[in-house]
Amino acid sequence: LLDYLAANISPKKSQIFLQSEIPAIAELCFLFSMFIPLPHILRNPTIKKEIKDKKLGESYPMGFLLYPVGQIADILAFKADIVPVGEDQMPHLELTREIARKFNQLYCGVDPHLHDTEHLRAGGVFPIPELKLGRVKRLVGIHGPNANGQLLKMSKSLNNAIYLSDNADTVRAKVMQMYTDPCRLKVTDPGKIEDNPLWIFHNAFNTDLKWVEEAQDKYRSGKISDVECKKKLIEVLNNFLDPIRKRREEYASDLSIINEVLKAGTIKANEIAEDTLRIVKEKIHQDFFRRRLTF
Amino acid sequence: LLDYLAANISPKKSQIFLQSEIPAIAELCFLFSMFIPLPHILRNPTIKKEIKDKKLGESYPMGFLLYPVGQIADILAFKADIVPVGEDQMPHLELTREIARKFNQLYCGVDPHLHDTEHLRAGGVFPIPELKLGRVKRLVGIHGPNANGQLLKMSKSLNNAIYLSDNADTVRAKVMQMYTDPCRLKVTDPGKIEDNPLWIFHNAFNTDLKWVEEAQDKYRSGKISDVECKKKLIEVLNNFLDPIRKRREEYASDLSIINEVLKAGTIKANEIAEDTLRIVKEKIHQDFFRRRLTF
Repeated sequence: LLDYLAANISPKKSQIFLQSEIPAIAELCFLFSMFIPLPHILRNPTIKKEIKDKKLGESYPMGFLLYPVGQIADILAFKADIVPVGEDQMPHLELTREIARKFNQLYCGVDPHLHDTEHLRAGGVFPIPELKLGRVKRLVGIHGPNANGQLLKMSKSLNNAIYLSDNADTVRAKVMQMYTDPCRLKVTDPGKIEDNPLWIFHNAFNTDLKWVEEAQDKYRSGKISDVECKKKLIEVLNNFLDPIRKRREEYASDLSIINEVLKAGTIKANEIAEDTLRIVKEKIHQDFFRRRLTF
Repeated sequence: LLDYLAANISPKKSQIFLQSEIPAIAELCFLFSMFIPLPHILRNPTIKKEIKDKKLGESYPMGFLLYPVGQIADILAFKADIVPVGEDQMPHLELTREIARKFNQLYCGVDPHLHDTEHLRAGGVFPIPELKLGRVKRLVGIHGPNANGQLLKMSKSLNNAIYLSDNADTVRAKVMQMYTDPCRLKVTDPGKIEDNPLWIFHNAFNTDLKWVEEAQDKYRSGKISDVECKKKLIEVLNNFLDPIRKRREEYASDLSIINEVLKAGTIKANEIAEDTLRIVKEKIHQDFFRRRLTF
């Protein structure tokens, strides 16, 4: 939560809430699971990849397969029309769109082939949510590729991430040990820009495009050292993180604010999710008693 | 609900509620699914049988696998110590006992090898529920065996049931067409008692044990007709159903009572389930905000 606030996500514009405190999400998850053929979950590339990467075999908990269904409920409970995610979440969003279309078709009589933007006007409960990818679709970690030669995304569990909460020295140390072009042994060796975290990071964060272009040319022809480019990146990242660190410190000095933000967000999120659940229950003719949830 | 009340389940002693109106059940279901290895669900004989009988192949909804998990939540939300079920529900109860033990072990430090009755005293949240089978563990339907030679249990979806709401003429018609011993073509043929719905029903409902014993002897030696035994069964069943039919009529004359019973039961059930969820969240350290659910 400190990360969110420090990164300037404003609680005035954005409700930040605890998923586990929104009962309607669990109820929608239970309901939506009735609409999803099991193979659509098992075929989900992100689920398949996780099972493979984490060597789960067939011994994972039932709840692991519920994860994408929970995500559908997370999105549809708030009738989101735009969902900002990383590239790896695309299959989950595709499932969400499938369920929104199916619900609108089965219970609101909406033609499933209608254009996304026409579903609400045609009487559907759910908008068909659209994916919003950032300029950087997925940020790589600071380590080298895995056994299959692939660079892995930044991830807490892989311990290959630079955190918004890292101080300047930690960022320096992490960048200095960052994986670059393994074939480049001395400055005069020509360097590779592609699949090189050093340059992926420069392209993501360095706003001095002229410097980046010139430095990449020099790197390719063996005229600039890794260390010089890393030092520049440390400067860029610390400039980027400094205002975040400052806001973080302010928020951290009074954690009661954090708690208030979370509580207000959870109350507001419940209002919306309870309303969605009420409409869903009406549509499926399971609207028996009106309830009220208070905190 | 009319069936329950007509069968003399008293709302004064028993809370009758709508499962879909108990959000804590959906939340506990979501949570418990994290404790259940997927193979324990897929190996569940009742689930396997349903997939086979209904020819679902691999194209069943995700929610189908959630059914036994929902049942665990149904039971544990109310900390049931005794669960009266039919024989076919035994595997589900076994899963429930497994999850209750695991939760008590992981979050309350209870030795999982403790005797069932010792779990609460040792600080567990959940009692380890015990199965309560009736004298008749599972009632067969009125039709003959399936392709595998097995008599199927009475089931609405198989349309082989006698209903508590059937009138005397319907019961007569259903018993007259009831499957008996297919090898017995005339009265003097010796009849088979075993796997014969006619006698399974007499044994379940006929309190005149002397008549049953004598009639079975005659049936075995070809001295009593199917029709005579069926007529007796019709009398027995209608005597059994008459007071049920009378109470049903009384309740059906004022359906507002039904609605009140259901609402009062749902409110009471929510009080208990919300309390269980609150304690569970405390134990797993996810107790953030106190909520109140009103109707």
